[in-house]
Parts: sequence; C-alpha cells; structure tokens
Amino acid sequence: MKLFRYGSAGNERPGLLDARGVRRDLSGVVGDLTPHTLSPDALARLARLDPSRLPEVDPAERLGPCIGQIGNVIAIGLNYADHAAEAGLPLPQQPIVFSKHTGAVSGPNDDVWLPPGAQKLDWEVELAVVIGQPAWHVPLSDALRVVAGYCLANDVSERAHQIEMEGQWIKGKSYPTHCPLGPWLVTADDIPDPQAVELWLDVNGQPCQRGSTRTMIFGVAHIVSYLSRFMRLAPGDVILTGTPPGVGMGQRPPRFLQVGDVITLGSPVLGEQRQRVVAAPVPAQASGPR
Amino acid sequence: MKLFRYGSAGNERPGLLDARGVRRDLSGVVGDLTPHTLSPDALARLARLDPSRLPEVDPAERLGPCIGQIGNVIAIGLNYADHAAEAGLPLPQQPIVFSKHTGAVSGPNDDVWLPPGAQKLDWEVELAVVIGQPAWHVPLSDALRVVAGYCLANDVSERAHQIEMEGQWIKGKSYPTHCPLGPWLVTADDIPDPQAVELWLDVNGQPCQRGSTRTMIFGVAHIVSYLSRFMRLAPGDVILTGTPPGVGMGQRPPRFLQVGDVITLGSPVLGEQRQRVVAAPVPAQASGPR
Repeated sequence: MKLFRYGSAGNERPGLLDARGVRRDLSGVVGDLTPHTLSPDALARLARLDPSRLPEVDPAERLGPCIGQIGNVIAIGLNYADHAAEAGLPLPQQPIVFSKHTGAVSGPNDDVWLPPGAQKLDWEVELAVVIGQPAWHVPLSDALRVVAGYCLANDVSERAHQIEMEGQWIKGKSYPTHCPLGPWLVTADDIPDPQAVELWLDVNGQPCQRGSTRTMIFGVAHIVSYLSRFMRLAPGDVILTGTPPGVGMGQRPPRFLQVGDVITLGSPVLGEQRQRVVAAPVPAQASGPR
Repeated sequence: MKLFRYGSAGNERPGLLDARGVRRDLSGVVGDLTPHTLSPDALARLARLDPSRLPEVDPAERLGPCIGQIGNVIAIGLNYADHAAEAGLPLPQQPIVFSKHTGAVSGPNDDVWLPPGAQKLDWEVELAVVIGQPAWHVPLSDALRVVAGYCLANDVSERAHQIEMEGQWIKGKSYPTHCPLGPWLVTADDIPDPQAVELWLDVNGQPCQRGSTRTMIFGVAHIVSYLSRFMRLAPGDVILTGTPPGVGMGQRPPRFLQVGDVITLGSPVLGEQRQRVVAAPVPAQASGPR
C-alpha cells in the first residue's frame, strides 16, 4: 500500500495511491497520517478499503512529507561499504548515529533552500524507515516487525556546517527543507526485503548516485535493533539509513549545489522526488552562521 | 508564573503554582501544556486567571515533565568556562550542538534508569530553555523574545555510549528517563536575566555540582540566535544549555551512578528534582549495546 499526504504545507490531508496509480483522498477515513495511524491495526483498516470508492485527488496538488507529526529524525552515517571505500574511510564497527531537527522535513518536490552564505550544500539519497510501534531493546529477529513502512529521503547536508564548525553533525543536517520525505509511505508488506532497494540521484539530469541497499554495512533490522538499545523508538520516528556513493563532497573536485540546480532522485519501489535549489527566503539582514 | 504537569506518565494534566506555593489545576482552562499554550498570548491568558478560583491539586500527585509534546531536545556541550577548565579542554569557539531523543524526557522526580550493562552513567544539572515562538535567523537582540520560559533539567548521560562507541553523542544522551524536566516551567517574565541562575546537584547528599549560568561561554540569547541559523526552532522545542563543573566523569577518579544512588538537583528560581537510580525495567534477555 502506498500512502501520501497532499495540500499546502502544514495543512496536509491523507491519501492513498490505488492500483492504477490514481491518487485517492483518505480524509473521510482518517484525519491525517500520523504516529497514530501507523500501527498494524490502523494500517490493516486502510488496506481493507475499496480505493475505487474514495474521491480522486487533483494530481496538481502539492505532495507533503508522507508522514505528519514526526517525533524524531534519526540518521545513520557512513553506512554503505562502497561509499566508505570511495571516501577512503575505514568501515565503522557499529552504526554512526546523528539526528536532524524535525523542522527540516519537507515535501518530496518542495524547493530546497540554500542557507545564506552556504557554500557546501550536498545531496544524499536514502532509504528512510518509518517506525510504527514502540521499540525498546528489540532483538534483531523482531526488529522489522516494528517498521510501518519505508519512504525515499534526501538527507540534504551543508558540509561546512556539518563538519567544519566544531562538533556534532546536527548543525549541517537541520535546515528547513533539508529532509524531503516521500512521495509515498510504502507499507512494509510491499517491501519484504529492505536490503534489495535500488536508489539513484541526479543533479541537473547528470547521474550522481547509483546504489542499492544491499551494500549497506548495517541493514535495516540491525539499525532498528541497535538504536532501540540507546533510545525508545516511537511510532512516527523516522530513520534515515545512510547514503550510497556519489555525494558532492566525494567528487574530485568536490561539487556542491547552487541556486538553480535541480535534484531528482528515486527508487523503483519508493517513487521519485524532484527539488529545485533556491535561496532561502530568510528575513532581511539575516546572515549565515559564523 | 510557574506551570507544571501532573498525573500518570503520558496522561499528565496542566497545573499552576499559586503565590503561596499551592498547586492548582488548570484542566478546566487548557487541556495540557503543549507547544500551542506557549505563545505570549496563551501565557498571558493564564496569567490573568485568579488562581484562588482553581481547584487544588493533591500534592501527592506525580509531577510530569513540565511541557508535553516536545518537538526537539537540542543541547549545548561544554558551555561553562569553569567546566572546560576542570576538564582541561580548550574553550569552544562556537556552541557545540547535539540532541537527545524526545523519548528520554521524564518527570522531575521519576526514577532514572540504568541501562543494562551501563557502567558510566553520569549527571548534568542544566538550565533548559523552552521555545515559545517560531525562531529562524533571529538576531541576538530579539532572541530572548522567543523564549516562553525556563526549567531545570538533568542531562543524564552514559559516557561510554556517548564517547566510546564511534561517533556522535546522541547515543549516550537518549535513554528513557535520561532527561528529567521540571518541576516548573518558569515563564520568562519571572527570569529577566537567564545569566544569573544558580544551579546545584548532589549525589546521595554529597555536593557534586555548584555553578551559575553567569560562567556560561555562550549565553541563552547567543545560543538561541546561533541555533536559529542552522534550524527553525519551533514552539515546544527545548534547549539544554550545558552544565557547570562537577560531573562524575570530571572527578579524579571518575565516579559514576549505581543502582540505589539518589540524585538531587535544584536552583532557587527553578525548583528542585530528586531521582533514584534503578535498573532499567527492560524486557527479559535484553542486552546493552555492544
């Protein structure tokens, strides 16, 4: 099942993609797609609906992030063996964990904002995991049971803010629009093997990232089980699972995003995103971090 | 004005401390203290109430975290000059930023859970800032205007998870019960100078931390303005502002928390907390991170 949210930012309504790819409105069934609608029971109720009886959604409507009221955005760093090799870095012995401020989340086709003064804006196509049930000290063998579904994510990153400004990556990972999620929340039953998901990302039509989750160092089940021993994951938490090779920072010379660039990314099972890079609409006289 | 939340975990109701220190029930006025009740207008409405007309709350009721539906818990590291000196570390040139999973938040007097296998559980008394209005690229001169209020926090930390397990502090900062907040949300009008707040923390009655926010390297206004250039702060975000000297890791030899220890902490303007350290009630066969 593919679920989505549509409408203006902050006022999204829920929707469901039918078997023919027609967008259907779920407003008459649930108020929104939130942590409360991610449980197995809640998703099973949606799966029993006859989509042909639901109103069609105007395809011109904006798509929002495919989940509302996200609790925490957790992310895994350096999680692809081929990306680590490309970067000349040793493989981590355990998952590297950081977070993004939830205010970074945006719709899959919303503009990506270049912060004032930013010179190292970069892209990262990723498989995102959406947690559907509380998860605390979950054994590896049960870890996939707490996953409600998956979606496509762009872990947009400002590398100078992330790496060159003293301590902790969150600074370069949290700007508004730097976490496009969607278009679809693909429920877990549709992706029985999360380690066989192809991912791609182009900038201005030029291929940049090509990868598969099969080269992840730590797979989805491992990540969920591992995280659950440091924190109690909650429904509505989203986990970005790392990016395959081909980010801008890894190119020789490095290549970063400029105003006017267009990022397209996708996956055969997760759908596609398209973002234009624009100058952040900051208040007058706003300056970047120094 | 001092606001609080009381009742069982997850079902807290709002309250207000009257001038005589009697706890009064706000349930008839607002459903809960959440991001929506932190705006200047919403707080002004509460300030106009006559507390003597509100029902009294049984003082035996548990106190919950003083804010519900917290969006993000952001924290500043190594932010006290005397703490940096004690640790023998150079002063940071800009704020060090990390985060705690929101599932770490607990009531001011709830037990603190020792994770299975954890050997380096530590304490950190802090001034916490509660954001009341959206804040994005806020100039230093306006930064305190977006603050709804302040509360006491214990930034409980597992040092091995934080520092010795490859990358990014969030791992050692996010366990459930590792972010007691309260007892009171003290509204900003009651703390005109957040750089004159005394803080103390004892373990088993033995003095450990004694400090004042006047030795912060980066003050509250600086922190809020700085963060707002990397992320759009939202009502209900909580910022922990760093800890003064005297944490367990800084002692010679280091001293860490054990089951049975009692942590007390407080501040003349923020109130007091008391936590017992107990083994985390984890599922059978749960193990710690390796």
